[in-house]
Amino acid sequence: MKDIPTWIDEYHKGSRFGLNGKVLLKKNSKYQEILIIETDCYGKALMLDGCWMTSLRDEKYYHECLVHPALSSIDKKSHILIIGGGDGGTARECLKYSQVAKIDLVEIDEEVINVSKTFLQEIGSEAWNDKRLSIHIDDGVKWVEKTNDNFYDVIFIDCSDPSEFSNLLFTDSFYRECKRILTKKGILATQSESPESFKDIHIHILKSLNKIFKLSKTMYSFVPIYPSGIWSWTFASEEELNLSKLYYKEVMRIEKDCDVWNLNFQNAAFQMMPNKIVKELNSKNDQ
Amino acid sequence: MKDIPTWIDEYHKGSRFGLNGKVLLKKNSKYQEILIIETDCYGKALMLDGCWMTSLRDEKYYHECLVHPALSSIDKKSHILIIGGGDGGTARECLKYSQVAKIDLVEIDEEVINVSKTFLQEIGSEAWNDKRLSIHIDDGVKWVEKTNDNFYDVIFIDCSDPSEFSNLLFTDSFYRECKRILTKKGILATQSESPESFKDIHIHILKSLNKIFKLSKTMYSFVPIYPSGIWSWTFASEEELNLSKLYYKEVMRIEKDCDVWNLNFQNAAFQMMPNKIVKELNSKNDQ
Repeated sequence: MKDIPTWIDEYHKGSRFGLNGKVLLKKNSKYQEILIIETDCYGKALMLDGCWMTSLRDEKYYHECLVHPALSSIDKKSHILIIGGGDGGTARECLKYSQVAKIDLVEIDEEVINVSKTFLQEIGSEAWNDKRLSIHIDDGVKWVEKTNDNFYDVIFIDCSDPSEFSNLLFTDSFYRECKRILTKKGILATQSESPESFKDIHIHILKSLNKIFKLSKTMYSFVPIYPSGIWSWTFASEEELNLSKLYYKEVMRIEKDCDVWNLNFQNAAFQMMPNKIVKELNSKNDQ
Repeated sequence: MKDIPTWIDEYHKGSRFGLNGKVLLKKNSKYQEILIIETDCYGKALMLDGCWMTSLRDEKYYHECLVHPALSSIDKKSHILIIGGGDGGTARECLKYSQVAKIDLVEIDEEVINVSKTFLQEIGSEAWNDKRLSIHIDDGVKWVEKTNDNFYDVIFIDCSDPSEFSNLLFTDSFYRECKRILTKKGILATQSESPESFKDIHIHILKSLNKIFKLSKTMYSFVPIYPSGIWSWTFASEEELNLSKLYYKEVMRIEKDCDVWNLNFQNAAFQMMPNKIVKELNSKNDQ
């Protein structure tokens, strides 16, 4: 079975997106079905419970847009929390910033980390050996609850779509807890689903963060292997999200290495809300 | 066969995107295989030679981004040429501008117009009955060749991916001919493929238009049913592409009716070039 090229599809509300490839690994962890596929199109790819999570050749579309708007814009960024992110890509992008002193990566499913280290080494890359990275196999919600006030400078929520075990990562009470453990100028950065294929959840996240934090901004960009290809990331803070000029030279160095993100792209992406979402948010605010 | 819901997929370089639905029509025209599918996800959809062209529920992502950056930015827009565009969506968006006096829609395949009028009425909508619209069943390249100098204010190239019968729409000589028949301040607007799934053609179009016209700008946005979901449109002119303030009120009215496009979105979309394309264009310019 393992060596026969075949179509592996993610099914989503009457659409499917498939990649041709060979299944290298199929196993059930305590939480989900894990597949590693060697695809023709995007290199090795990870599928969890039938959903494409990441692939060697498209992962930068996602990871660069989650990490750099937050880390290029915040002054103090020594303590970082990543919730989820078991493929290592978010940690890798964070560790490009010299000021990052400590990352706690809290992943509920140890098997995701194990298969990522084995099959998707290029994604986590040097991050796995970086002494600044601490891996904790734990529930992100519980980790946040037991963390002291004002502890992290940046929190990244790098999770899968809402499901039985990730639902709580999309609730007001969880966002409030995140706010409690952030430093005063800290930033919460979360993937915020697709305005096209997950419109209701997307709008829910935007409204929640807008209510709980003083400021929240959503950027829209592309993730080719996710449903509809349109994706979003939302950044929330009690402070303005302006690019710090203090470390401009470092940001320029990081930008050179990026496949998707650059400062110009980022500033634009924060204005790419489709007009129907603009209208829907406005009409709901009027109610 | 016709009534059984099934998966209809577009295959593209080791990936496939499928919609579940019922095939309402399958026929071969002189040029291509035409399918009309009633899909669960996007309503009725058109597939040509195995490629998704448009659907009732996602067509605005494409048509609004092709038409409005050109027509909201140009002062004189009385004479318009649409090459391709047999589904009627581009004409419909153009006809929203009161200043548009005459549209020549030149479609090579009469059958595309026939099936669009029959099955996808909502896309062309009132455009089909608008006296300003003239339909010509002809080869776009030949039409341009036989047109007098400085005739059209705006030309829209609303074509499918390069193929046996559309290849010539992507050549330098065709772009030069378009320039010849444009008025002095005229704009050529073309879909310019995906920087992800058609990268080589995409870069070719950008370089060609940049070489032939004094100014060309590319915008990036989303088309959920096209390969990778990332799409681009390029606008070329001998003049600056600034939004004319003269008809601002009309543009505001049109914006209100849009699903995707608004002026803010448009200005951002022109800055959404993925960094790897920026780098590739820069390195090629250096050679």
